[in-house]
Amino acid sequence: MGDTMNQINYRLPKRKDGQKTFDHILETAKKLFSKNGYQATSINEIISKSGIATGTFYLYFDDKFALYSYLLTKYRKLIRKAISEGIKDSHTRYDKEKNGLKAFLRFAWQDPLAYRIIWESMFADKKLFKEYYESFSRDYVRQLGFAVKDGEVRDDVDLETLSYILMGISNFVGLQVLFRDQLTEDDLENLAEQAMKILTSGMFKQ
Amino acid sequence: MGDTMNQINYRLPKRKDGQKTFDHILETAKKLFSKNGYQATSINEIISKSGIATGTFYLYFDDKFALYSYLLTKYRKLIRKAISEGIKDSHTRYDKEKNGLKAFLRFAWQDPLAYRIIWESMFADKKLFKEYYESFSRDYVRQLGFAVKDGEVRDDVDLETLSYILMGISNFVGLQVLFRDQLTEDDLENLAEQAMKILTSGMFKQ
Repeated sequence: MGDTMNQINYRLPKRKDGQKTFDHILETAKKLFSKNGYQATSINEIISKSGIATGTFYLYFDDKFALYSYLLTKYRKLIRKAISEGIKDSHTRYDKEKNGLKAFLRFAWQDPLAYRIIWESMFADKKLFKEYYESFSRDYVRQLGFAVKDGEVRDDVDLETLSYILMGISNFVGLQVLFRDQLTEDDLENLAEQAMKILTSGMFKQ
Repeated sequence: MGDTMNQINYRLPKRKDGQKTFDHILETAKKLFSKNGYQATSINEIISKSGIATGTFYLYFDDKFALYSYLLTKYRKLIRKAISEGIKDSHTRYDKEKNGLKAFLRFAWQDPLAYRIIWESMFADKKLFKEYYESFSRDYVRQLGFAVKDGEVRDDVDLETLSYILMGISNFVGLQVLFRDQLTEDDLENLAEQAMKILTSGMFKQ
């Protein structure tokens, strides 16, 4: 996945049946990590629940950490892809924020294990957790920089802090969504509207 | 601690030496939970690292979950107390948000294990995790409701969503702080200033 974090500790399958096994290991590990956490899940458990031979595991991954960091990178890519698709017809930063937020909330709703896997990285490896959010922040800062240049975003705020503010809003409105029993497209639109009101003119009475 | 979650599964010590043992068990458990996570930490490990007899543990707690939920409730109280103290001289909602944010960031910086313990509750018990944030949200909504009535906060946003937005900002600017190597009072003031700019007039050029 081209990341410094996991350049050498995993090997992608070369054939179709290998790909099936590889995906199956990932899916099994995802369930175990999200149920019991990183530390309490052993390689043996992953191997046994995947119904594979021990050697098959090591064919693809050096160790549990390698598998976990592969999974985390996969989530990072999936979330970015979901957001990219959500904003592909958005031309202003306003529309990008709103539709990006909706895409993120939809993703969280559809794959509630995502939060567990991502937040669990605090326990798997502090550097991995840090790198996960810092990499999102760097991308965000770059995009926001363009919008400042275009005159759409104000030029008197620190963009790194703004990126964490925006990630915080997505992640916690995402929690609000996860705590619900149901979610319609209208709910999503309404939640995104609320957030955009604050991002447009703040929380105070003008 | 008067919470429905842990009304009957723990017993507070009655004497001074009991209090010392009780606090020592909590401190040991906090370290173990934050290092290895909830699932991977056993009662036996807590007992052995605390250097107590098995019976002593059960004198105070029914089980691991009882201890964990006590710890989480303690954090909830500590964070609320830190924020209350931080805003005790603040009279406007603006000042309360700003000084509350600074108090939260200071707390996160001084006790970086807090995030681990709180976010780990996702693994200990989904209901506990949900209850943790929903209870913060309810309090926030009540406070924001007063500020709407006073005409300081706008009356056209959903206050529950606003409360999650505000918690998201604190928690993620808190992450930005945790990722740093150092933090001065000037840094804190500056970070809070950035957040207040967004909360006052949004992220877009007016």
